[in-house]
Amino acid sequence: MRIDIATLFPDMCMNYLEESIVGRAKTKGIFEVFCHNIRDYTLDKHRRVDDTPYSEQKGMLMQAEPIFRCFEAVTEGREKPHVIYMSPQGKTLTQKRCRELSQEKSIFILCGHYEGVDNRIIEEIVDEEISIGDYVLTGGELPALVLVDSVVRMLEGTLASADCYEDESHYNGLLEYPQYTRPEEWHGKKVPAVLLSGHHANIAKWRHEQSLITTYTKRPDLLDLSALPQKDLDIINKYCDFDKTDED
Amino acid sequence: MRIDIATLFPDMCMNYLEESIVGRAKTKGIFEVFCHNIRDYTLDKHRRVDDTPYSEQKGMLMQAEPIFRCFEAVTEGREKPHVIYMSPQGKTLTQKRCRELSQEKSIFILCGHYEGVDNRIIEEIVDEEISIGDYVLTGGELPALVLVDSVVRMLEGTLASADCYEDESHYNGLLEYPQYTRPEEWHGKKVPAVLLSGHHANIAKWRHEQSLITTYTKRPDLLDLSALPQKDLDIINKYCDFDKTDED
Repeated sequence: MRIDIATLFPDMCMNYLEESIVGRAKTKGIFEVFCHNIRDYTLDKHRRVDDTPYSEQKGMLMQAEPIFRCFEAVTEGREKPHVIYMSPQGKTLTQKRCRELSQEKSIFILCGHYEGVDNRIIEEIVDEEISIGDYVLTGGELPALVLVDSVVRMLEGTLASADCYEDESHYNGLLEYPQYTRPEEWHGKKVPAVLLSGHHANIAKWRHEQSLITTYTKRPDLLDLSALPQKDLDIINKYCDFDKTDED
Repeated sequence: MRIDIATLFPDMCMNYLEESIVGRAKTKGIFEVFCHNIRDYTLDKHRRVDDTPYSEQKGMLMQAEPIFRCFEAVTEGREKPHVIYMSPQGKTLTQKRCRELSQEKSIFILCGHYEGVDNRIIEEIVDEEISIGDYVLTGGELPALVLVDSVVRMLEGTLASADCYEDESHYNGLLEYPQYTRPEEWHGKKVPAVLLSGHHANIAKWRHEQSLITTYTKRPDLLDLSALPQKDLDIINKYCDFDKTDED
């Protein structure tokens, strides 16, 4: 997979992409990523890329032309990549969409800054607007990195083993069960005995129960109670205050 | 406001926090931020901070003790900060929560990595778990930066003028209207005439209509149709296919 990021802060993006798990995947050749400075594509002699919005007293808007010239240069002679604009107006990112995007051959991500971009560049080149959540950020760089991280994580070879893609939060619709590592006792708190028992069936049962309880307690919106089997409802009934969701 | 971030990748975090709008706010003294390497607080002679989870064949879990020692060192002699663990198990971040958190005097953010952290450290020090969205990332660093960015953005003095905090996406429950900057015509696409008219009432009316249409088209889940005044419903009726939401 090839990823291109068009931004006013290419170093900020690249710094992240060189590190940790994503950086290792890049080094291993699992994906390629290039960060492009939109400012390199302006024709303005002062290297300006923004201007005041029409009929607005405040803020600055990124102009269409430098972004378009950047896009043209980056994609010249290549098949058109899937173009994503990181925007609060976009559809909210989900794990399902990350998995789908991990199948793309080439993604071009546009990061807005200041008040955003001239709407005409969205009409001209953008296939999809994606938001990472319902909060306002100072620019599209962190959202772009969130998108790259979540997509690259799904590429084969990024994580140590295929198992790691499973059982994780949001993968099966339930939140993950609590996890523990050494020592067995810490600050008077003991690791649940079942995890030390070596009894696989009991451990699996405990984990499923804990996942259900965690999800019901912390993120009841993720659970469709009407679709749960009776044995799962019984678990919630037994361990949780069943009226709790009414308060949220 | 003081923000402390406990992470295995302090440089990755600090690189972002030195740049752009957040970096300027830091330079102006609007907030202080410190990134702490959890690895500096392990007692293990090989500087290890993680171990295999109990009864799990895969992945690594961050141990409680190095995190606790980091927390103790950072908060020694100070009032206990509000402690946040960035986690897919947390409540989903919203603009409302960002605004509330911007009132805190001191925030301590714990970033997990690998498979997460030993559950006992959450019980011991964490006040709140926050998720930035329903997708899986390789670590808590990007979520922590998203949180810092959205919170710092709300602090007085970070943005150029108080106006900038208003009218923006997600602030008033509607998405923003399209914006345009020079030139008036680009690739055959003209700036909407009303924006060049100088007629303030018409511009305000156009913007409100466009915000409604944009929200209805792109994020119908944000609109509570039953709470909209009739004149807003008429606008949606006039410009949008009213059955569209049924497809989503």
